[in-house]
Amino acid sequence: MTLPPMVNAFDPATALLSPEDRARVERRARVLGPAYRLFYQTPVHFVRGEGVWLYDAQGNAYLDTYNNVASVGHCHGRVVAAMAKQAATYASHTRYLHDGILEYAERLLAHFPPELSKVMFTCTGSEANDLAFRIACSETGGSGFIVTENAYHGVTHVIAGLSPSLGAGVPLGEHVRTIPAPDPRRLISDRASDLGVAFAARVQAAIDDLQRHGIRPAALIVDTIFSSDGVFADPPGFLAPAAAAIRAAGGLFIADEVQPGFGRTGQHMWGFQRHGLTPDLVTLGKPMGNGYPVAGLVARADLLERFGQKARYFNTFGGNAVAAATALAVLDVIEGEGLMQNAARIGRAFHDGLADLSRRHAALGQVRSAGLFLGLDILRDGQPDAELAARIVNGLRDRRVLISATGPLGHVLKIRPPLPFSSENLDFFLTRLDATLAAL
Amino acid sequence: MTLPPMVNAFDPATALLSPEDRARVERRARVLGPAYRLFYQTPVHFVRGEGVWLYDAQGNAYLDTYNNVASVGHCHGRVVAAMAKQAATYASHTRYLHDGILEYAERLLAHFPPELSKVMFTCTGSEANDLAFRIACSETGGSGFIVTENAYHGVTHVIAGLSPSLGAGVPLGEHVRTIPAPDPRRLISDRASDLGVAFAARVQAAIDDLQRHGIRPAALIVDTIFSSDGVFADPPGFLAPAAAAIRAAGGLFIADEVQPGFGRTGQHMWGFQRHGLTPDLVTLGKPMGNGYPVAGLVARADLLERFGQKARYFNTFGGNAVAAATALAVLDVIEGEGLMQNAARIGRAFHDGLADLSRRHAALGQVRSAGLFLGLDILRDGQPDAELAARIVNGLRDRRVLISATGPLGHVLKIRPPLPFSSENLDFFLTRLDATLAAL
Repeated sequence: MTLPPMVNAFDPATALLSPEDRARVERRARVLGPAYRLFYQTPVHFVRGEGVWLYDAQGNAYLDTYNNVASVGHCHGRVVAAMAKQAATYASHTRYLHDGILEYAERLLAHFPPELSKVMFTCTGSEANDLAFRIACSETGGSGFIVTENAYHGVTHVIAGLSPSLGAGVPLGEHVRTIPAPDPRRLISDRASDLGVAFAARVQAAIDDLQRHGIRPAALIVDTIFSSDGVFADPPGFLAPAAAAIRAAGGLFIADEVQPGFGRTGQHMWGFQRHGLTPDLVTLGKPMGNGYPVAGLVARADLLERFGQKARYFNTFGGNAVAAATALAVLDVIEGEGLMQNAARIGRAFHDGLADLSRRHAALGQVRSAGLFLGLDILRDGQPDAELAARIVNGLRDRRVLISATGPLGHVLKIRPPLPFSSENLDFFLTRLDATLAAL
Repeated sequence: MTLPPMVNAFDPATALLSPEDRARVERRARVLGPAYRLFYQTPVHFVRGEGVWLYDAQGNAYLDTYNNVASVGHCHGRVVAAMAKQAATYASHTRYLHDGILEYAERLLAHFPPELSKVMFTCTGSEANDLAFRIACSETGGSGFIVTENAYHGVTHVIAGLSPSLGAGVPLGEHVRTIPAPDPRRLISDRASDLGVAFAARVQAAIDDLQRHGIRPAALIVDTIFSSDGVFADPPGFLAPAAAAIRAAGGLFIADEVQPGFGRTGQHMWGFQRHGLTPDLVTLGKPMGNGYPVAGLVARADLLERFGQKARYFNTFGGNAVAAATALAVLDVIEGEGLMQNAARIGRAFHDGLADLSRRHAALGQVRSAGLFLGLDILRDGQPDAELAARIVNGLRDRRVLISATGPLGHVLKIRPPLPFSSENLDFFLTRLDATLAAL
């Protein structure tokens, strides 16, 4: 079994490294498992972060156009202060009463439709998706899951089994069916002119196949921005028929908001809202604590009611007082600094800027985006070209701009800067991208 | 399906609560899933922690004799400072070079036998056990797991499936076999006078049963202090034949050190060292970051090498710079304050103090312990009595001492204070326990 190449993975055989970084790479190889990967042909060694910038040991500033964990900006003062204060005061778990978890839960749930009225806390998006998996199995009595062809939902055993993007070395779950991503260029044809109808037909075909094998469908789970599949956001609403199809078959619709959630898509707090639907379960992660390990699951009350009759759930660190205080500060910053609105405004300008560049550079193809979540196809002679995408990613790194690539073919530039991204930051990015393309 | 009663779970129907706490309980019920449980007949509302003490909103101090997460003491200044400083400086992930993860990995691995030479980082003990599960399946090509009858290893789907203590509402994995805990009173008989031989025979019987069903054994996983089974530590060495048995069958031996690890057992950093063996995989969690969500897996290099050929593993928050700095400070404190040595010394005095009390109180049965991990049987007329154990737990809570109960029958007091526990703290505990028993 050969491991599929990871997009933008460091290969020590071809690297040019300073003696100090070479020593770090060797120390990593000595003490960390080889399942770890570094980014870039020449990995970067960072020592400081602030806002949208990361700094290497020599003091060089890199524009971070990729990190959707430090979503309100690296080392945001208000978030760090809230975390430090709570950690110095009280830090224990959810089996004692504490106001922090209640205040955060209420504030978070206010951003959801009223049907999604309860929350449970975990530490990672993987754990949130794993809990959603457990609830879906328990609720439906089924074991069949439907995911997109290059989906990524996390690293626990069952969730890695829902993540075909991890490659053939990581087996899919026995009852998992994959469907094509909602890429209009693949799904729209003379027979299907509506992406929602075409995508729902693929979901239905997977349901039929599960049932033909005697497997009851448990859930359709999608990252609502389809980031590992190549970023598919349009037309708004296309997800609704798919959600209806899985529900008609007795399964749940799970929205994985670990990537698009918390305002990144600009017009909405959550990616599913773009599609005018209400999921049964919503999972949250990455940006929730701006780097502090906090994640969660928001759900219909009746689902958790029935699950709670069979199972108790205690996550030692999940929802602890520090997690709640930190996540509350993140929500305060998103709301107080108008970051969702900024994501919408700058995201549009970003989209337009990339579209402009693509008219001048044959290597740039279609731009797809929602807010500050953007995908940009890289082409050679009009065909997807992962090698060229990797050269652009590394060329930008050499020009001190951080992004990466994604998609089943590895040819889609994936751009998701911290949300306080400014027009100046955008100009910086576009100038560097232009120069990188010119130097190819 | 009825949910089995959780030991020491709050029941709103019988509770006496202040109006403020009643309101908190109602807010919890509104926004959190019902799978959440509070401790105690009258839940406690804490607002501050320091060392071995937790403080309620009225300023009352409670002696924490139960928390093995805040293992170096609640809100330890050095740990909080290290976390806050790193969070304000740089907080990103393992795909950029950073010295923090290397320094911590090297310092941590120095506490392991040389065969266990590599580490991978996760956020929770559940994730660490889930990764061990994945590696065991990948390495052996098997799917059979052996656990003790009342084991608890975590909350992901497959790990909940290895955790019979979660009750019949949470299904065990299809290829999971349970064996009796290594309780000398159950396993030693005329036919088996050696606990190690007797326990290994149960492991072998489970292996035979798996193979009879055509299932290849993947691993035996045990919490090396058997905390949810009732705390079994003696005689040292009893685990070695069981580990040999699973290995002879081609499976791995996984030591779950989430509970006993990081010096708590007094004479050793890890519970497995008490048994004079070297596991294939070791999982770490709870006390690793003194409350910061950091956990990990320490492994033989060849296992990770083969796993890494098939799978890459990226845990967004796992091993981030803040996690590494925090965990390093915890290790500094354990070493610098001599906490393992303190656990050995005070643990012996604790054991003796409980044994003394048990001579005066018929409700107290056998004491079992290693360092500051203690189990104490509660009996009525010489028989296990969970109801009496619950009354003692709640009686201690009313006297401002925090512990809980464990074991398949719920009759074992589980005592695991923060490691900087002093002789005075011990006197405080024993006096309160004496008074609680006198008032029964």
